[in-house]
Amino acid sequence: MKLGVINVSDRASAGIYEDIPGKAAVALLQEWITTPFETAYAVIPDEQALIEEQLRKLCDEEQCSLVLTTGGTGPAVRDVTPEATEAVCDKMMPGFGELMRATSLQYVPTAILSRQTAGIRGSSLIINLPGKPKAIGECLEAVFPAVPYCIDLIDGPFIEVDPEKIKIFRPKQS
Amino acid sequence: MKLGVINVSDRASAGIYEDIPGKAAVALLQEWITTPFETAYAVIPDEQALIEEQLRKLCDEEQCSLVLTTGGTGPAVRDVTPEATEAVCDKMMPGFGELMRATSLQYVPTAILSRQTAGIRGSSLIINLPGKPKAIGECLEAVFPAVPYCIDLIDGPFIEVDPEKIKIFRPKQS
Amino acid sequence: MKLGVINVSDRASAGIYEDIPGKAAVALLQEWITTPFETAYAVIPDEQALIEEQLRKLCDEEQCSLVLTTGGTGPAVRDVTPEATEAVCDKMMPGFGELMRATSLQYVPTAILSRQTAGIRGSSLIINLPGKPKAIGECLEAVFPAVPYCIDLIDGPFIEVDPEKIKIFRPKQS
Repeated sequence: MKLGVINVSDRASAGIYEDIPGKAAVALLQEWITTPFETAYAVIPDEQALIEEQLRKLCDEEQCSLVLTTGGTGPAVRDVTPEATEAVCDKMMPGFGELMRATSLQYVPTAILSRQTAGIRGSSLIINLPGKPKAIGECLEAVFPAVPYCIDLIDGPFIEVDPEKIKIFRPKQS
Repeated sequence: MKLGVINVSDRASAGIYEDIPGKAAVALLQEWITTPFETAYAVIPDEQALIEEQLRKLCDEEQCSLVLTTGGTGPAVRDVTPEATEAVCDKMMPGFGELMRATSLQYVPTAILSRQTAGIRGSSLIINLPGKPKAIGECLEAVFPAVPYCIDLIDGPFIEVDPEKIKIFRPKQS
Repeated sequence: MKLGVINVSDRASAGIYEDIPGKAAVALLQEWITTPFETAYAVIPDEQALIEEQLRKLCDEEQCSLVLTTGGTGPAVRDVTPEATEAVCDKMMPGFGELMRATSLQYVPTAILSRQTAGIRGSSLIINLPGKPKAIGECLEAVFPAVPYCIDLIDGPFIEVDPEKIKIFRPKQS
């Protein structure tokens, strides 16, 4: 199994900032998931064409079952991660963005400024996360309980987790 | 008055499964609505072109004021009911999907995997419901209080209900 | 600084109704914001082309940092304010509509019938509000705490408010 993380940040990709958000996302996956996995990782600038290219690469060539992006979800002119995500996805999953914003709203009223979304490309689930490490944990923890079952439904690998670290849920098959 | 229900399911349309979701949706309408109505009913496979055709038929030819679909709202490759709905609607109604997902989230964390939506085609309101009978009831009960007034606003018939069974709401006209 | 308000209403623009919603929105901005500002104001019918033209004028020529619309967000055939908004925006901000509907749902179940949204055009934030004065206040109060920071992020003026009247929030820069 391979999982992907893309830190979308002009400043991190230029080496001005340390790449904290991307590493925070990888650390959470490693803490929670017990099924062995490799990580595909990239730090790229806020350019829609580059984000799309990297998403296609991680989904199609690297066959990542889950691709997390960090950053680029706000209202600023360089924030284009949601647009890139929508451009490469077969199906959008609006419930992820809704729940992540509702969760972040418990902490900050500016949560509504995040345009983060999620979608399916082939057998990969792509989820946009915010750029701030604290918000990354809050958002990923909110939606992750549904992630393994989502990946089951798109014919991905069966993901197991450490139930002491995170609870997941798979409904009984009807 | 005519109301439509479409069960979208490869297995139910092939006779492998009993058609429980569609019948569950009809039973709720019959329990709640006191205005006399006929039901237009169909069980069809998860094919976007067929779903669109059936939605157009129930809205335009059969003149159903409300069309409920069941099933086909998840992330799997055959789940295309929301795409078919969006393709035939003049206007999308994002508040229905948001409230149905928020309601289902009280029961299961996988509620965010549902992409169910609603929209207007002419004088018909189309609402996507999930495929599991229990979830159908939870979701339809959550949004139904707004349905009769919505149908008023799109020049449909005046729908009355049994207030012992379901509460509806019509704001005072301004 | 200039702020814009557009009352979208066939009846108010024809002089049949008094222009209460637009004035209610202006009154809230004047009550809350202490940074001096001028108001650009219009009352226009529910015609998509006219709404788009007015939005472009207030954003591009008048350089309004914030443009509020009132009315035209429901399911009726003449309700086209969200479509006009989406047509002129560079980026959509789904969190505004989600939070405004969730807020209005605390008062009326028909809140899900509002299709109100928000988006960015250049350095302007456009927010759709409902048409009823009571709902205008409820919705604008819910999202306004995030508005000044949003306008910071799109290179607009630094907006200050009276903290006795409304609380706003700016996260510490990372």
